[in-house]
Amino acid sequence: MTQLQRANAGEITPQIEQVAAIEYRTPEEIRLHVAEGKIVIPANIHHKNLKPMGIGRLLRTKINANIGNSALSSCPMQELEKLNNAVKYGADTVMDLSTGENIIQIRQKIIENSSVPVGTVPIYEALARAGGSQGLSESLILQVIREQAEQGVDYMTVHSGILLKHIDFAKKRLLRIVSRGGSILARWMRQNQRENPFYTAFDEILKICLEHDVTLSLGDGMRPGCLADASDAAQFAELETLGELVRRCRKAGVQAMVEGPGHIPFDQIEMNMRREREVCDDAPFYILGPVVTDCAPGYDHITSAIGATMGAYSGAAMLCYVTPKEHLGLPNARDVRDGVIAYKIAAHAADIALGKPHARDRDDAISQARADFDWEKQFELALDPDKARELRAEALREGGRSPDHDKRAQYCTMCGPEFCSMRISKEI
Amino acid sequence: MTQLQRANAGEITPQIEQVAAIEYRTPEEIRLHVAEGKIVIPANIHHKNLKPMGIGRLLRTKINANIGNSALSSCPMQELEKLNNAVKYGADTVMDLSTGENIIQIRQKIIENSSVPVGTVPIYEALARAGGSQGLSESLILQVIREQAEQGVDYMTVHSGILLKHIDFAKKRLLRIVSRGGSILARWMRQNQRENPFYTAFDEILKICLEHDVTLSLGDGMRPGCLADASDAAQFAELETLGELVRRCRKAGVQAMVEGPGHIPFDQIEMNMRREREVCDDAPFYILGPVVTDCAPGYDHITSAIGATMGAYSGAAMLCYVTPKEHLGLPNARDVRDGVIAYKIAAHAADIALGKPHARDRDDAISQARADFDWEKQFELALDPDKARELRAEALREGGRSPDHDKRAQYCTMCGPEFCSMRISKEI
Repeated sequence: MTQLQRANAGEITPQIEQVAAIEYRTPEEIRLHVAEGKIVIPANIHHKNLKPMGIGRLLRTKINANIGNSALSSCPMQELEKLNNAVKYGADTVMDLSTGENIIQIRQKIIENSSVPVGTVPIYEALARAGGSQGLSESLILQVIREQAEQGVDYMTVHSGILLKHIDFAKKRLLRIVSRGGSILARWMRQNQRENPFYTAFDEILKICLEHDVTLSLGDGMRPGCLADASDAAQFAELETLGELVRRCRKAGVQAMVEGPGHIPFDQIEMNMRREREVCDDAPFYILGPVVTDCAPGYDHITSAIGATMGAYSGAAMLCYVTPKEHLGLPNARDVRDGVIAYKIAAHAADIALGKPHARDRDDAISQARADFDWEKQFELALDPDKARELRAEALREGGRSPDHDKRAQYCTMCGPEFCSMRISKEI
Repeated sequence: MTQLQRANAGEITPQIEQVAAIEYRTPEEIRLHVAEGKIVIPANIHHKNLKPMGIGRLLRTKINANIGNSALSSCPMQELEKLNNAVKYGADTVMDLSTGENIIQIRQKIIENSSVPVGTVPIYEALARAGGSQGLSESLILQVIREQAEQGVDYMTVHSGILLKHIDFAKKRLLRIVSRGGSILARWMRQNQRENPFYTAFDEILKICLEHDVTLSLGDGMRPGCLADASDAAQFAELETLGELVRRCRKAGVQAMVEGPGHIPFDQIEMNMRREREVCDDAPFYILGPVVTDCAPGYDHITSAIGATMGAYSGAAMLCYVTPKEHLGLPNARDVRDGVIAYKIAAHAADIALGKPHARDRDDAISQARADFDWEKQFELALDPDKARELRAEALREGGRSPDHDKRAQYCTMCGPEFCSMRISKEI
């Protein structure tokens, strides 16, 4: 039985217990929200070393890091390095989006080494195995999903919401369809003049998910790829279908969340979050960014952390990170770190703003350490202690001070001793 | 006569004309807002190579980059490198916050080489010349302000709003007074049991500003230095005084803007912007960040770009950047670049969200370039073309592709050719 079915039966599962403990909530609160489908606990029964966690807007905002290779880049070792960076810096889940060589082996390694839930997008493996669009079929898709479920994948993105009738909406767009899964399926539907196999075989997919407790992440194949395409007919038509699929998942006892955009102007983010909540009966909303301007390639971890903060503040439950490499190439381990930290900031800032339990404790502690000139404690409490130490050391070096300067002096190179407000404050 | 006085007399100055042209507004609109004090045009009559620009929430959101040395770091050459990086990447104004050696010479170089308005905080030079708090006096302060005005400083931060009666409010705080100017003045007031000289000599200061058309930036000496201290009695008591000073400036014919926080939780930013507008009669609000979490030293350009976007969206007119070195040390030229770009993103995202004229043009153009696989055009339209090129080249290298790959191929290393949604979209 899935977490949803057990919660519905009134059971407080060990996973619910654990989620309650780390989120400062009562087990009964968590059980109720899981039963209602407002919290999901992605926990494939075959993922042995998993630490259970929950996703829902009642809980601390979660972040996901995408890793995985492409046909052009990366090997299993590099992917494990990315996994380690992602988890070290605070990713709550990882998605293996590999589309290149050794997809199955890379995923196996990632699941074995990951204590956080692992997600995938099965259409990628299906297309790779099909050797091109012609070879794609409903049965191959179901086979891939079944094998991934048996391997221990905790949640899967299925683009079941993009239908034949939606495709024409994309013609009016500047960037058509930018979701990889969405574009692959739209092409297949058009070529074969048949409905989306992820939609027609949805009941079969649900059966597999039930058996292994795979959480479905209902993908937004029509997510906008630039500000000009945001909040348009294509996006919202698909969202209606996603709402219908949420209800089918819940009825079947399968946990479900919903994926969201993408590229959205800052002023439309709150409306987008509200609309998902209404259309999808408050299923956890898992958003990608959103990026709030199109013109900062190289800095999309920042453009999207801005949108992600507003998204989480307005009700998103999980934020899929974007790295500085977005729109430019496959992220490497350094990009993964930069992306994860930017998203920890976004999620944490939103949690503070929403007054989630104990959200500000860490901030108050680091501020106290600042008042005390306790540099070591500041580093320890930093979201990225390595980076804080590195920049502090650089500033001391450039200021001609020795690396152990901080053990004696109560000021930094920004102001120097005579202009240190913290020091002067103490004299008042 | 100042821009404010001339606007009030019905004159369309050359500066107003130019601001209107670059902001897609009519000269009469700009004149009216300058006359009302809702737009300032910082333009010291002695700053010869200045390109006029305006600051006000009707206009494109502006960003400021702080440069300047400390007693421990940096020389005039390094400061010019920072100035060049700041202007190259899009700073609309720079502030020279030098507190170390050669303050006057560094400022002279910066003014000579800057086409954007230059701001200062005169208490820094005054304290440096006084050789310590004991030597500070009203006459020295006025002398410094006069000399800086004659040198061509376009705007000056004066912490005239922090009064004896406010100091006790700071005792309740975790971080007391974190503004350098605020803490220096509070200590002086307490030591001498006298009122703030920037307040008692305010009429004298106005006379100097009138003569050279220096814009006053009314500093917030009580800005909160951590989330725990945000939106408290100290901050808002000072704001009331700032509102009074705005009215005195306008009456005297002196242009004025108001400085704001600082460290503010995301949910309190809109309220803070609204309150300044009400208390200070819509004087342009010039905010520092705000930082939305305290615990990400090394990444405060990101934590604060999030707050700055919300601030600008809610009515702030100018954003003072924060660099990755904030809370750690004096920024170097690389930090200046990182800070400026993060703030260009924040300002631009807010302008798009507010529907300012032509704000989204650049985004639509770069999105079109993406649809066309026109990499060169994407780079040209990027806020930081160098960074975009650098990361693209890195991705190609790591993907085993030659640097001129983009001249032939229509996909990136993120997805590879078979999984390129843009390419697939074209096939549909």
